[in-house]
Amino acid sequence: MASQSPRTFTKSEALMSRARNVVLNGIYGHQSPGLLTQGEYPSFLARGEGCRIWDVDGNEYIDFMCSYGPIVLGHRHPRVEAAAKAQMDRADCQNLPGEIWTELAELLVGITPWAGWTAFAKNGSDVTTWSLAVARAHTGRDKIIMAAGAYHGIGAWCTPSGAGITPSQKADVLTFTYNDLQELQRVAAENAGKVAGIILTPFRHEAFHDSEMPAPGFLQGVRDLCDREGIVFILDDVRAGFRLSLEGSGDYFGVQPDITCYCKALGNGYPIAAGLGRDELRPAAESVFFTGSFWTAAVAMAAARATIETLRDEGGIQRMEAMGTRLRKGLDQQARSLGLDIHQSGPPAIPFLTFVGDAVFEKNRMFCGECARGGVFFHPHHNWFLSAAHGEKDIDETLNVTEAAFKVVKERFGA
Amino acid sequence: MASQSPRTFTKSEALMSRARNVVLNGIYGHQSPGLLTQGEYPSFLARGEGCRIWDVDGNEYIDFMCSYGPIVLGHRHPRVEAAAKAQMDRADCQNLPGEIWTELAELLVGITPWAGWTAFAKNGSDVTTWSLAVARAHTGRDKIIMAAGAYHGIGAWCTPSGAGITPSQKADVLTFTYNDLQELQRVAAENAGKVAGIILTPFRHEAFHDSEMPAPGFLQGVRDLCDREGIVFILDDVRAGFRLSLEGSGDYFGVQPDITCYCKALGNGYPIAAGLGRDELRPAAESVFFTGSFWTAAVAMAAARATIETLRDEGGIQRMEAMGTRLRKGLDQQARSLGLDIHQSGPPAIPFLTFVGDAVFEKNRMFCGECARGGVFFHPHHNWFLSAAHGEKDIDETLNVTEAAFKVVKERFGA
Repeated sequence: MASQSPRTFTKSEALMSRARNVVLNGIYGHQSPGLLTQGEYPSFLARGEGCRIWDVDGNEYIDFMCSYGPIVLGHRHPRVEAAAKAQMDRADCQNLPGEIWTELAELLVGITPWAGWTAFAKNGSDVTTWSLAVARAHTGRDKIIMAAGAYHGIGAWCTPSGAGITPSQKADVLTFTYNDLQELQRVAAENAGKVAGIILTPFRHEAFHDSEMPAPGFLQGVRDLCDREGIVFILDDVRAGFRLSLEGSGDYFGVQPDITCYCKALGNGYPIAAGLGRDELRPAAESVFFTGSFWTAAVAMAAARATIETLRDEGGIQRMEAMGTRLRKGLDQQARSLGLDIHQSGPPAIPFLTFVGDAVFEKNRMFCGECARGGVFFHPHHNWFLSAAHGEKDIDETLNVTEAAFKVVKERFGA
Repeated sequence: MASQSPRTFTKSEALMSRARNVVLNGIYGHQSPGLLTQGEYPSFLARGEGCRIWDVDGNEYIDFMCSYGPIVLGHRHPRVEAAAKAQMDRADCQNLPGEIWTELAELLVGITPWAGWTAFAKNGSDVTTWSLAVARAHTGRDKIIMAAGAYHGIGAWCTPSGAGITPSQKADVLTFTYNDLQELQRVAAENAGKVAGIILTPFRHEAFHDSEMPAPGFLQGVRDLCDREGIVFILDDVRAGFRLSLEGSGDYFGVQPDITCYCKALGNGYPIAAGLGRDELRPAAESVFFTGSFWTAAVAMAAARATIETLRDEGGIQRMEAMGTRLRKGLDQQARSLGLDIHQSGPPAIPFLTFVGDAVFEKNRMFCGECARGGVFFHPHHNWFLSAAHGEKDIDETLNVTEAAFKVVKERFGA
């Protein structure tokens, strides 16, 4: 039945069995291999180059997860690696920042028309959680509105798991259904004068769900509500940032927030996060204590500058859009010719595919498992990512694999 | 009056003036130059090598802040840099961890007699905040006891600033005075059956305060209380870890916690944090959602392994103790011969000096400012750090500078 001969994961399995002894769940969090198709994916990776990755057993994959977002130019991009290594040969983590601190801040503020300042951190969760404190300090109000089910990181206020979290840590966080402007307006009205901020991802992209683009007028409606009520509009661009527009995903969707949170793709895999904000929020933001041991380290900043400049100089955003569109068209054609009912969602550079009616993702796990076996690394429950290293030949090679995988799904489940 | 001719900070000042436009407070957080002696310190650093650092204007310093802890082997240690670069040439941040994930976990658990498992993160705050969730999940209780004024990071539950933090975010956090076992026992008794965890630094080391070693019997008293009441004993070893004992600072002080939080020195400046815990906490810890975009990245893990192995192979812990003792003796002798009343506190590898009766740190700002001018980077309000790169000649050169600085303090303030 398999479209390709099975790959072996001997080294992966040995490492995983050792890891289970000494690490929580062997591998915990979003990279837990239990979230992938059992038996078809490795548990450990050894190497990356451009859009290709190799697992510890030597199996090769075209990578459509891009490390769950960070790899936006391709693995080990020469310009980024050269910038990082040149900085490493001087200094990384010191008692004070390096010159790159100021230069990267100028670059980020310079490409973001509405922003007056930035602050750097390490995790997406660092900046999303901090953005709430800035909104609260600015408004003197306590309540925050977020979309139900949205993923904004591991802060106690939003973590998807309740384990170890007390009710009081989640107090003052209200929810509404993404894209339901009326419900949002109702929640805001019921809490008039008490809402500090509304935090949103630029489109709906949580795992185990089709991605959902903002409905016409939705984001502008949020902007208007925030302006009317003095609420801080926070855009959580951790996942989508630097794939849709260099000015931020608000620009792509035609809206300007008050604070934007960046992380994943900012440094092409080097660990860095950033918050950007409007000038009128500066006094509040400066009053919030925000720091970490490695936050002024220069290597990730040098990588971030090289990443942004390369995306800009080489038209990386346009390339991801074009290659994502090529992939989407091919998948659509294949499914249609086989009579398979699929749903593709999200922007082309951050695509996702589900099978219509496949409520528990059974078909998708088989489809993605077959693709992994054929050398294409998708994810059955989480949106995918293009990088600027994906070219036409990579997409066409991918489509050869997906065609065989679709056929296996059809054989097993019918059209 | 100055012991040395003044240094110039032309480039630092120009970078700082640009940074003020585009970054919160120019530089925010613990590295804010406003916390150092005005006019005597740079704002930006360019390079590091061993125990020496150079600012952007080319001024050289012997570094006793070690990047506020991370640099434990010296800047750009050859073995760490080689390990990091070798890993960079394969992969860093991927869809899954690399082999080093398992290997580093085995190493950490192997050197920590009481620990059964580990989990990796990026910030000290990541692991201290997570440790509370583990304690709460394990006990089914909500309350946490910490020492008043202790620094455990920027989590809402403990951040030293109230700006942007709501009362409910700090609910369930109780305090007592570090080293006051009776007060701790009283707080625990008043909340009998409700306390999930007690979190402590191994010695008292918050800024703007003399360091304070644990009083005889204090840590054992905490251990006994936790055992008696089923409370999780959390050691926040973020700042002290890997400078006092490779088994953790609990070992140095003769106590075994239930969870230890590591960060700063673990990767010699490469960004990594780790939590270690006892086997009986594993189910609770596995239930807590804990993840971040860069947490499985391999380069910082390769650096961490090289750091631990180098500390072990080259007796780094003993060397820091010896060099810190040499510094302390020299400072003591100088102050005594000048009739200056100083107080030295903390373990020799993490020393601190204050002038007795210098309540607002006026003398200390002058002393440290004079030292900076002479090429020694201390801090007037925050404990210092030795690294294994400090040698006898570096300490003796430092003592030449401190002698002149003590004389300036005496001239200005009298004995």
